[in-house]
Amino acid sequence: MANTIDLNCDMGESFGMYKMGLDEEVIKYISSANIACGFHAGDPMWMRHTVKLAEEHGVAIGAHPSFPDLIGFGRRNISVSPQEAKADIVYQIGALRSFTNTQTIQHVKPHGAMYNQAVTDEALARAICEAVLEVDPNIILVTLSGSRWMEIAEEMGVRVAREIFADRALNSDGTLVSRSQPNAVIEDIQEVADRSLTMVTQGLATTIDGDELEVVADSLCIHGDTPGAVEMAKTLHRELSKAGVDIVPLGQLV
Amino acid sequence: MANTIDLNCDMGESFGMYKMGLDEEVIKYISSANIACGFHAGDPMWMRHTVKLAEEHGVAIGAHPSFPDLIGFGRRNISVSPQEAKADIVYQIGALRSFTNTQTIQHVKPHGAMYNQAVTDEALARAICEAVLEVDPNIILVTLSGSRWMEIAEEMGVRVAREIFADRALNSDGTLVSRSQPNAVIEDIQEVADRSLTMVTQGLATTIDGDELEVVADSLCIHGDTPGAVEMAKTLHRELSKAGVDIVPLGQLV
Amino acid sequence: MANTIDLNCDMGESFGMYKMGLDEEVIKYISSANIACGFHAGDPMWMRHTVKLAEEHGVAIGAHPSFPDLIGFGRRNISVSPQEAKADIVYQIGALRSFTNTQTIQHVKPHGAMYNQAVTDEALARAICEAVLEVDPNIILVTLSGSRWMEIAEEMGVRVAREIFADRALNSDGTLVSRSQPNAVIEDIQEVADRSLTMVTQGLATTIDGDELEVVADSLCIHGDTPGAVEMAKTLHRELSKAGVDIVPLGQLV
Amino acid sequence: MANTIDLNCDMGESFGMYKMGLDEEVIKYISSANIACGFHAGDPMWMRHTVKLAEEHGVAIGAHPSFPDLIGFGRRNISVSPQEAKADIVYQIGALRSFTNTQTIQHVKPHGAMYNQAVTDEALARAICEAVLEVDPNIILVTLSGSRWMEIAEEMGVRVAREIFADRALNSDGTLVSRSQPNAVIEDIQEVADRSLTMVTQGLATTIDGDELEVVADSLCIHGDTPGAVEMAKTLHRELSKAGVDIVPLGQLV
Repeated sequence: MANTIDLNCDMGESFGMYKMGLDEEVIKYISSANIACGFHAGDPMWMRHTVKLAEEHGVAIGAHPSFPDLIGFGRRNISVSPQEAKADIVYQIGALRSFTNTQTIQHVKPHGAMYNQAVTDEALARAICEAVLEVDPNIILVTLSGSRWMEIAEEMGVRVAREIFADRALNSDGTLVSRSQPNAVIEDIQEVADRSLTMVTQGLATTIDGDELEVVADSLCIHGDTPGAVEMAKTLHRELSKAGVDIVPLGQLV
Repeated sequence: MANTIDLNCDMGESFGMYKMGLDEEVIKYISSANIACGFHAGDPMWMRHTVKLAEEHGVAIGAHPSFPDLIGFGRRNISVSPQEAKADIVYQIGALRSFTNTQTIQHVKPHGAMYNQAVTDEALARAICEAVLEVDPNIILVTLSGSRWMEIAEEMGVRVAREIFADRALNSDGTLVSRSQPNAVIEDIQEVADRSLTMVTQGLATTIDGDELEVVADSLCIHGDTPGAVEMAKTLHRELSKAGVDIVPLGQLV
Repeated sequence: MANTIDLNCDMGESFGMYKMGLDEEVIKYISSANIACGFHAGDPMWMRHTVKLAEEHGVAIGAHPSFPDLIGFGRRNISVSPQEAKADIVYQIGALRSFTNTQTIQHVKPHGAMYNQAVTDEALARAICEAVLEVDPNIILVTLSGSRWMEIAEEMGVRVAREIFADRALNSDGTLVSRSQPNAVIEDIQEVADRSLTMVTQGLATTIDGDELEVVADSLCIHGDTPGAVEMAKTLHRELSKAGVDIVPLGQLV
Repeated sequence: MANTIDLNCDMGESFGMYKMGLDEEVIKYISSANIACGFHAGDPMWMRHTVKLAEEHGVAIGAHPSFPDLIGFGRRNISVSPQEAKADIVYQIGALRSFTNTQTIQHVKPHGAMYNQAVTDEALARAICEAVLEVDPNIILVTLSGSRWMEIAEEMGVRVAREIFADRALNSDGTLVSRSQPNAVIEDIQEVADRSLTMVTQGLATTIDGDELEVVADSLCIHGDTPGAVEMAKTLHRELSKAGVDIVPLGQLV
């Protein structure tokens, strides 16, 4: 039953001449930015630009590492070894951190296939935790709330943030309904807002089968890649604020 | 007329399945390692491996950033903007630093085309200096001794190391004879050793035209990619030691 | 004094999730498509898509090879050797051709920095010609009208197309005014249309200094990456047609 | 019970400055070369070099396409869609073919993870077949002898070559024993030669469990990346020749 929550969003996913996302708009409504590090999106110039944007808006900065898969936008599973995953993440955290004023970052949130695979692959989950601990144990790792990955991270002594998703349907076990299923993504803005408010303030979610599920959240994930997504970010920020929920970066919560 | 000198060598230039260099051998004879950061060679796994190797041997760690040119091994000039070069270097320094025990590095030495271009391109030279200052003003920048680039770095307040090359012929203005010219690279081990000793202990070098030139050096660059190069590293280390020259990392000199 | 002309446009410059260009619109107004081959833009999925789009519209297909520089969109000079350039082009022609119904292509037009560098760099100009001749001497090479590169191609027996640019100002020697200069790009649609019509039908252009210059053109290059560019393509197609100029693919002209 | 066999080997797996394989040696003992196309290894310069080497030795040329994974040498599974796999293969076939004198190739053999995944993943198996048929139905596809993938290719009308491996242990169902298992790779030269001879001339193999298995082979895969592997290639060629087996390219067999 939180009266505080972090709002996180993926950012800096442009690459060279290719523009993606409406970062300048969505930055106004979030408290934590997950910034691409060049493996699925982003490049050194865009990383500098996006870090500066976050710093100007007082938004906390996190690394958004990925499998090395620019052409697949990091959405394809790759059978990397745990050692490879760990090294890839250490590399990306360091690269991003180097652009910040403070030379530190608040959090790490794996991207796309790496995030989803960590929920079910314990070896990968551990490798991600080891990477974060190795670089800086003060860094917070964003994990799916209630997942085995979250438990592993807690057991390993990682500072863990429990994440829920504003617009994704949930299975009865708390995992996300796969995007390949119907109704996996909730598109109605008001429904997303109501649902998010209930998850944040009451710790309850309705699953896709109509069951009631307890959820605990430090951070709510939103999207910012379409005009509709920006509108949703704005609405969520407004409705949460109206309900008396403080929107603060993870570093103040975890 | 130094009685101390740093010996630096490029390392960690393997990539994936591709092995390059005899790092395990040459590491024994040097005091500073320039470690590839993934843009011309190296990858996260090799960076971890090479950093650990240097730490185990008490060799100081430096970043060896490059233009993004894996297929050309960073030896091709690319007309990057100063802003792109700066961002590329900040990225690579951060990525490498992330693998070290101390989360810091001793020095930065640009690789190949980037190094050569910095000697003649003031905008690039400045961009390199800005990158180092931005990430950490304690980091030492390795520049060609006597070059305009070296002067720019000093003017900008960068901690500068003045570098000479053990096996390269010099023009009368102190620049390196281009590899496209005959006799640009000196191959006789004894000649390289004698010449290095004279440069280090007497501050004098004979140019390709037979003139005598004053040279000042904090660091002597050696190679380690062939069995012959390793033998040369060993010989240089022995001859310098015999002559009473202390071989110490840059951090103790600059 | 042509009453026929080819209209060419760069296409297929999307990459993975990143969309670029308004190919579906501009394809209606052109006769030849220069399709990116993965080195500066494009990827196998987009190449298939774009080839099919061109085939459906009866637009002739050409390869648009580049230096290997995805992050720089092929707009940065790279000091590749002539051998490297030749091999890179042979590779890209082959890759693109493989997606076509006929397993052949009509033309090759180098992209960005490679095109501009070929105008002034004879070794590169020759390498490009050799690549085309090696793969298939029936392939037409698109070169800057009046350039030394065009002459070299003719001397070497390449089927050459002489290209002019609809919206670019000209120096007195027929080269394009550099984009770094003011007024290098003409933005007024009517002015571009009038100017193009005069170049195509009368063989005359006014240079940036106000001189009159004779120009000979087989192909007119237009752009299709902004709504304004599509409008310009539409206007050019209409005005040329109204003036009795046949718009036909290069293969019928050269 | 063949008295003819093709000997195939992976080649052209160097990349830029990185050398891999002993192609100049092994080329003497094989009849078909699987040449890397830049996705797991190889680059345009090495492709040109390797194609020429094969042409000079009268060795038939094939494409060796891979998932896009240079850093993993194509040995990591990637969850590409069948459409992506197909486009990737069409691209790579075309790129390689472009370097040949005849502008055609004899065969296609997928590399590493793509080959192994095709044995168990029907959608991928079909995508590979579609790619080959689309580019040129005369191209022979090399598949694991006896696999479901082989059957699919035959059903789809692809010219199929049935491949066995000189030095790999077999499970009772004819699949290769995984490299993660002990004794997966047979290292004794004489044992490999005897075993290969029995497979080729008698159509019989002993499985890892000691059972006898019927095998049918058009092509025998050998390796050439170590001095030992070259010695094995030489031995296999000699022993097969002594036993009266003709070693001929696939195009004469399938």
